[in-house]
Amino acid sequence: MKKGIGHAAIGDAIDSFMLIKDATKGVASNGKPFLTLILRDATGEIDAKLWDATQEDEAVFVPEQIVKLTGEVSQFRGKAQLKINSVRPAQPTDGVRVSDFVEKAPVDQKVLSEKLTEIIFEMENPVLQRMVRAFIKKYQEALLTYPAAAKNHHEYVSGLAHHIVSMVAIAREMSNLYPELNKDLLYAGIILHDLGKLKELSGVVTTSYTVEGKLLGHIPMMVEEIGLMARELQIEGEEVRVLQHLVLSHHGKPEWGSPTPPLIREAEVLHLIDMMDAKLNMLNRALDKVKPGEFTERMFAMDNRAFYKPMFEES
Amino acid sequence: MKKGIGHAAIGDAIDSFMLIKDATKGVASNGKPFLTLILRDATGEIDAKLWDATQEDEAVFVPEQIVKLTGEVSQFRGKAQLKINSVRPAQPTDGVRVSDFVEKAPVDQKVLSEKLTEIIFEMENPVLQRMVRAFIKKYQEALLTYPAAAKNHHEYVSGLAHHIVSMVAIAREMSNLYPELNKDLLYAGIILHDLGKLKELSGVVTTSYTVEGKLLGHIPMMVEEIGLMARELQIEGEEVRVLQHLVLSHHGKPEWGSPTPPLIREAEVLHLIDMMDAKLNMLNRALDKVKPGEFTERMFAMDNRAFYKPMFEES
Amino acid sequence: MKKGIGHAAIGDAIDSFMLIKDATKGVASNGKPFLTLILRDATGEIDAKLWDATQEDEAVFVPEQIVKLTGEVSQFRGKAQLKINSVRPAQPTDGVRVSDFVEKAPVDQKVLSEKLTEIIFEMENPVLQRMVRAFIKKYQEALLTYPAAAKNHHEYVSGLAHHIVSMVAIAREMSNLYPELNKDLLYAGIILHDLGKLKELSGVVTTSYTVEGKLLGHIPMMVEEIGLMARELQIEGEEVRVLQHLVLSHHGKPEWGSPTPPLIREAEVLHLIDMMDAKLNMLNRALDKVKPGEFTERMFAMDNRAFYKPMFEES
Amino acid sequence: MKKGIGHAAIGDAIDSFMLIKDATKGVASNGKPFLTLILRDATGEIDAKLWDATQEDEAVFVPEQIVKLTGEVSQFRGKAQLKINSVRPAQPTDGVRVSDFVEKAPVDQKVLSEKLTEIIFEMENPVLQRMVRAFIKKYQEALLTYPAAAKNHHEYVSGLAHHIVSMVAIAREMSNLYPELNKDLLYAGIILHDLGKLKELSGVVTTSYTVEGKLLGHIPMMVEEIGLMARELQIEGEEVRVLQHLVLSHHGKPEWGSPTPPLIREAEVLHLIDMMDAKLNMLNRALDKVKPGEFTERMFAMDNRAFYKPMFEES
Amino acid sequence: MKKGIGHAAIGDAIDSFMLIKDATKGVASNGKPFLTLILRDATGEIDAKLWDATQEDEAVFVPEQIVKLTGEVSQFRGKAQLKINSVRPAQPTDGVRVSDFVEKAPVDQKVLSEKLTEIIFEMENPVLQRMVRAFIKKYQEALLTYPAAAKNHHEYVSGLAHHIVSMVAIAREMSNLYPELNKDLLYAGIILHDLGKLKELSGVVTTSYTVEGKLLGHIPMMVEEIGLMARELQIEGEEVRVLQHLVLSHHGKPEWGSPTPPLIREAEVLHLIDMMDAKLNMLNRALDKVKPGEFTERMFAMDNRAFYKPMFEES
Amino acid sequence: MKKGIGHAAIGDAIDSFMLIKDATKGVASNGKPFLTLILRDATGEIDAKLWDATQEDEAVFVPEQIVKLTGEVSQFRGKAQLKINSVRPAQPTDGVRVSDFVEKAPVDQKVLSEKLTEIIFEMENPVLQRMVRAFIKKYQEALLTYPAAAKNHHEYVSGLAHHIVSMVAIAREMSNLYPELNKDLLYAGIILHDLGKLKELSGVVTTSYTVEGKLLGHIPMMVEEIGLMARELQIEGEEVRVLQHLVLSHHGKPEWGSPTPPLIREAEVLHLIDMMDAKLNMLNRALDKVKPGEFTERMFAMDNRAFYKPMFEES
Repeated sequence: MKKGIGHAAIGDAIDSFMLIKDATKGVASNGKPFLTLILRDATGEIDAKLWDATQEDEAVFVPEQIVKLTGEVSQFRGKAQLKINSVRPAQPTDGVRVSDFVEKAPVDQKVLSEKLTEIIFEMENPVLQRMVRAFIKKYQEALLTYPAAAKNHHEYVSGLAHHIVSMVAIAREMSNLYPELNKDLLYAGIILHDLGKLKELSGVVTTSYTVEGKLLGHIPMMVEEIGLMARELQIEGEEVRVLQHLVLSHHGKPEWGSPTPPLIREAEVLHLIDMMDAKLNMLNRALDKVKPGEFTERMFAMDNRAFYKPMFEES
Repeated sequence: MKKGIGHAAIGDAIDSFMLIKDATKGVASNGKPFLTLILRDATGEIDAKLWDATQEDEAVFVPEQIVKLTGEVSQFRGKAQLKINSVRPAQPTDGVRVSDFVEKAPVDQKVLSEKLTEIIFEMENPVLQRMVRAFIKKYQEALLTYPAAAKNHHEYVSGLAHHIVSMVAIAREMSNLYPELNKDLLYAGIILHDLGKLKELSGVVTTSYTVEGKLLGHIPMMVEEIGLMARELQIEGEEVRVLQHLVLSHHGKPEWGSPTPPLIREAEVLHLIDMMDAKLNMLNRALDKVKPGEFTERMFAMDNRAFYKPMFEES
Repeated sequence: MKKGIGHAAIGDAIDSFMLIKDATKGVASNGKPFLTLILRDATGEIDAKLWDATQEDEAVFVPEQIVKLTGEVSQFRGKAQLKINSVRPAQPTDGVRVSDFVEKAPVDQKVLSEKLTEIIFEMENPVLQRMVRAFIKKYQEALLTYPAAAKNHHEYVSGLAHHIVSMVAIAREMSNLYPELNKDLLYAGIILHDLGKLKELSGVVTTSYTVEGKLLGHIPMMVEEIGLMARELQIEGEEVRVLQHLVLSHHGKPEWGSPTPPLIREAEVLHLIDMMDAKLNMLNRALDKVKPGEFTERMFAMDNRAFYKPMFEES
Repeated sequence: MKKGIGHAAIGDAIDSFMLIKDATKGVASNGKPFLTLILRDATGEIDAKLWDATQEDEAVFVPEQIVKLTGEVSQFRGKAQLKINSVRPAQPTDGVRVSDFVEKAPVDQKVLSEKLTEIIFEMENPVLQRMVRAFIKKYQEALLTYPAAAKNHHEYVSGLAHHIVSMVAIAREMSNLYPELNKDLLYAGIILHDLGKLKELSGVVTTSYTVEGKLLGHIPMMVEEIGLMARELQIEGEEVRVLQHLVLSHHGKPEWGSPTPPLIREAEVLHLIDMMDAKLNMLNRALDKVKPGEFTERMFAMDNRAFYKPMFEES
Repeated sequence: MKKGIGHAAIGDAIDSFMLIKDATKGVASNGKPFLTLILRDATGEIDAKLWDATQEDEAVFVPEQIVKLTGEVSQFRGKAQLKINSVRPAQPTDGVRVSDFVEKAPVDQKVLSEKLTEIIFEMENPVLQRMVRAFIKKYQEALLTYPAAAKNHHEYVSGLAHHIVSMVAIAREMSNLYPELNKDLLYAGIILHDLGKLKELSGVVTTSYTVEGKLLGHIPMMVEEIGLMARELQIEGEEVRVLQHLVLSHHGKPEWGSPTPPLIREAEVLHLIDMMDAKLNMLNRALDKVKPGEFTERMFAMDNRAFYKPMFEES
Repeated sequence: MKKGIGHAAIGDAIDSFMLIKDATKGVASNGKPFLTLILRDATGEIDAKLWDATQEDEAVFVPEQIVKLTGEVSQFRGKAQLKINSVRPAQPTDGVRVSDFVEKAPVDQKVLSEKLTEIIFEMENPVLQRMVRAFIKKYQEALLTYPAAAKNHHEYVSGLAHHIVSMVAIAREMSNLYPELNKDLLYAGIILHDLGKLKELSGVVTTSYTVEGKLLGHIPMMVEEIGLMARELQIEGEEVRVLQHLVLSHHGKPEWGSPTPPLIREAEVLHLIDMMDAKLNMLNRALDKVKPGEFTERMFAMDNRAFYKPMFEES
């Protein structure tokens, strides 16, 4: 059996370390305070109630704290819930770190970093290459650790870099099949399209939206960044406006966040590849959790569909 | 009777100077070439056909050329068309200029310029005031001559400045009625909200969209401009992001071109005042052309409605 | 600190009189009955549970009963809930009245009444003035006490009159800025536009919808009322149909309840001013509850947006 | 071969009387005036051009004038057009009347009138019966001659009465199949539902919309009429509000003109029967014009569908 | 008072047999397991909690088990809930059967079967008649027992046959009123239109969707079945394609599940009759539960409307 | 300069063979008949008028006739039109064939046929392979010549096979990048997804819709075909239903023609690859006609967008 809370079934006994993602105080019908905890490890999340919580409990069991738990997986309103038998904060001697409890891309950061470097070497248009190189240098640290989104797809450590590298792989093959495509432009668009998320999202672990992220959104912020970077590098030429267009239009439609729809071939292809990779990332992870003959849970970002894994699939 | 082609009725004789806005060559059913002209003066436009056009005619009757015409207003497919009796290019001795044939704001440029200056003096927040002052200085020339749009509302010389000054007048009264409003922020938003049109539109007289205007649109371009200007002026602080938000959200909804809807009180009010002034500009000009008891033509930008002028209105 | 339940924070001790707005019986998991109470004072509402409720409790703690409570504000499912320590019905000697516990317009009824009178004096068109005067006379009592809506905006005692007076103030300024507007028609439309709510809504304190309100709605009912009143006053002339049109179209679109959209200039302006005043009423009240740097709760009637109060606002 | 312009094919010679429905003056490319005529008989319409029209022609060939024509059916831009060989105004001695050239209901007016009387006798609820009787009396003349609409369905003389009588026949059978239905209420709703069209439409022959029809629409006008009639007859009781609801909601949805959707069983059934009869009227008339194995023209009011007549239908 | 759980009010004592429709295990806040039961009899359903459930309870109280209960109807979160005093599994000696606890069509199966036979005898087109006869023979058993849907309308035993027979009754009358209708085609379409549900739905009692039902839906499955049956019966001719079209288009619009909308008169009428019968079935059953002057609960399949029963209706 | 009518500019002289695609008779304003011809060669289409057409002309110049023309490209209402100087029907001795005048896929039929065979050899699942092999055998002839659509994308001879082969190439690379994909299922879905068009479309050269195509559409027809083929080959197993699902869902949404959306991973990917290849086919062909710095015409099937070719593209 696969280990970790993401693979636990109703009735399983639990004896492991987990990270507190969220903790909220409530008052039970007997008038006593309790804590609602959201706990996670690298494989998933589960809710838990800590009944009769003391003031000390409230002070200790806070977000980003690692805890050692024993208990049993039960069910509450059709959803798994951990029934806690014992719980204590982790000690330095336990040898556990926050980074052990967060999901990570299935490809190593170092590999992702090397692949990004390779892509730059493949590019021939000097303007586009300089632009991309400058951004990778500026955001190197964050680019290799940020998720690609707060939820839905690639929502794990290094998710953004994983998404980029995966999209470039599709783009490379598409450029071979359709030689009319401007490969350099497509690569540049893919690498820059979501970099605005480094300002829109609050961080790597408990990711939320920043105030400027809510007021402006990652797309207009990145369009602006490209303008500022071009001025800094003293780059002129239509490549700058075209790159801004690729970023601006990559959600495909105004109602999806792109005030201008794709009006350049590579902008349209960037939008399609983005959708393709995001959807496959979601589908593969959801189908990985079910057996042949079963349906996944409804997936909000897939128009609320539940997907079926055929019987003739190898499980 | 009011003078000018915008007030002419079917059957009227015409003997005046007009500006060629557009000229297209065609071939008639008798095999002979003809020119389709769009002619305009300061009050409006009319179509005309120049039959049996010679090669010389083609060379002479081109856009932005002023001509002296005689003819009669007839009707073709339910639309007024000028039947040309005679036509010749204007001579220097005629003493006519292109600027005589374009529609202008009902308020003088000088007055608009003074009013903009007054507004700046009314502002108290130093960051917002510096920002606005810098943009007015940078774009002074264009700001005082550009239309506010290529069609629909304030689509005349100085239309943009007229729209701004008119919106500020509403904002001033709204701020008196609702003292919670931040007047400086609202003023700054109003002055900057459409400045991106100076890059989106091609010019003052025969206004079309630039390539960068089509690829990016005036809203994202102005968000970027604010960022560049803030860096240039070394301005920091939330005012910059908030001003960008006001510009970004002023169309109200993603499907209307604002990827982020208004999330700040003054952004919502800016959107409402913009709509109010644009709609009244369109309505007043359309209703000015009909008599009490009549309906206007259908107005595309007013959801294709035809408006009624009540019988008890003074005509 | 501002007083009243609308300003209470989690953990605050409560010792005050409140009005029961709603009371529902339930059965707890221990098999014993309890009461779910919705309590309010002039500043807001809060939920509370009365555990182990006796039959006498059920008889005493009913809607529109004032009670004296002590307790503490706690949290249940992310929402504030009052934990009751003690509760008793108010006595005559307590000197409290129902009207102390409902929210009221920030402007006094007497002032609102005077302002309505002033407006009538400003009107010059005798037909419109007679019509408006007759309606104000007919509904004087209710017009000065009803809310403008059951929820969302101006949902307090005298809310309707407050909304009208506030809209007229905007209309007065708009008429100065755009002299083409027929001020009398606009005033008449504003005063009558929502009077149908006096039949659509059940009353001032615990406002719900009447059966005829549900079957017809305030807009068609008011259109009919204008027709009946015109017959009664033996008024003829286009003013009647035009006034009916202003009322009929003031929601702007069929899907918002106006089967005919505005087709007269003042109808369009009435719709815009109605939206402007309703939105500012909602925004000002919601932003009044948050500090600079914070977002409001999501507002259903503002397309579910949460609004931000900038840091540079005075709190 | 069926006679009449509605059955004519390209190439057919024409020698008959027709009614001018519309006449517009134009100027041909040779500079000479011409008239565009829309001609009709009881079976349909056709366009025609009268070239080289004299001023006398303009004075004579006007709407509602009957003319004697010879010519040939030709084609212009894919649409039939009558090529006129000769044309003269009809003389009193020709013995033709306007009523010969308009389409009429397939059931005689006298029969329709009798059927309406029968329906009243079937009704048992005295309030509903009195109401219906009063309206039939008030509008007897117009009710028996008006079309049910300006276009699309039952758009012929007596179309409204034909539509009512046909709907009542369906309602009678539905009441037998579903005895829960209140037959009297359903009958009353059917008879009154479109009476507002008598004020919304300009008349029987060349039907357009009145100003009050455009500003208010037949639905709110009829809701008001019911209120006025009830006051006149001193009728009280829920029947009045319920009847108003049936009229108000009979278009089914706000975006189709009913600000309130059906909330009473008979209101829903009225809406469904109205749709059923209108659609069958359109379908039967369109399919009557095509042969088995063919498609009809696209029908705007049927979501632009073209309908197929199966091969195994008897033609 | 009507008997059965569908007619029970808050506070009623219960002492009767019921069928367990669903049973789910949960853990209470005291850490002890409980069962959430959905119980039903022929008149409706109710939720119940069985506290402190033993392992034996879990094994005994499972779906499709009949139980003998005593208890009281209480309220939980605004919804009726049965408070269980005692419960035991039914014994053979109790003389109760599962079929006693499911809702059935108000018309007897034998009558429905005879009516289907009569319909076939009414048909004259031999191709359509053979087709229909073959399908009735193939699915006789299921056709007489299946519901017409898993929820919303005719969701009871024999619901499908009841729906068909009721629709044919409407069709018969419509064919009399509109003789242009091809009665045989309409009958055939009605009988076949929902037969795909026999494969889409899992069965008669606890109805859910089959995997092939979810992947294909009853409409495409039935189109295929008609093709297979035609091949089997060696039937050729346009009737087959036309019948497939009627089935394919009977939901009326792509967004309602018909990729092709009705393009044949009888297809349109089939769609309208289907809607008419389904809506009346829902309305009659919902209104049967309320008194004059009351509104029904909101009905999801009726656009979430609550319907009103007028005061002048006999209760 | 590239040859062929698709590359001709206004003013070019024409002296070549062309195919008549459509011919309509009209009557000119001088009363004489003329023919409107749509002419095409392998590169595109152009309109032309043949004035003063004799009855012989009408008999000779009919669709699918090849003609020899001289003339000049002129402009009519902003669209190119061929001014005919001389025209005669082609003679056998001219050595021209219809197939010379239709657009063909850029890949040879023989190559496409070989590639289809290769794909079958790549497949490993015997059920899917047998199914695909049977269909390729059944439709070999048509499959290699039909267009993929009547207009928009791959609307040329062998367009369907070209589309399939191109989609499989993408699928092959996607399967390498995402090994979770079931390659055989994806290949089978791609090959079968549009085969219903062989019945929906009328033929290769002047492609229109068949009656069964209009009544059912290619998607339900192909779902049925798969069922019939499975029965013929006596294939059972979930592969059949899953293949039907892939075909049924490949348009992605009900409003685009798929009553069931993709619910299987490979169904989603099939939909995405179909869109990707169709869009690139349209974009590449439209952009091939414009120079760097220009926009294409508006493309209906690309949401009416006009695409821009950047200046830094090699033309």
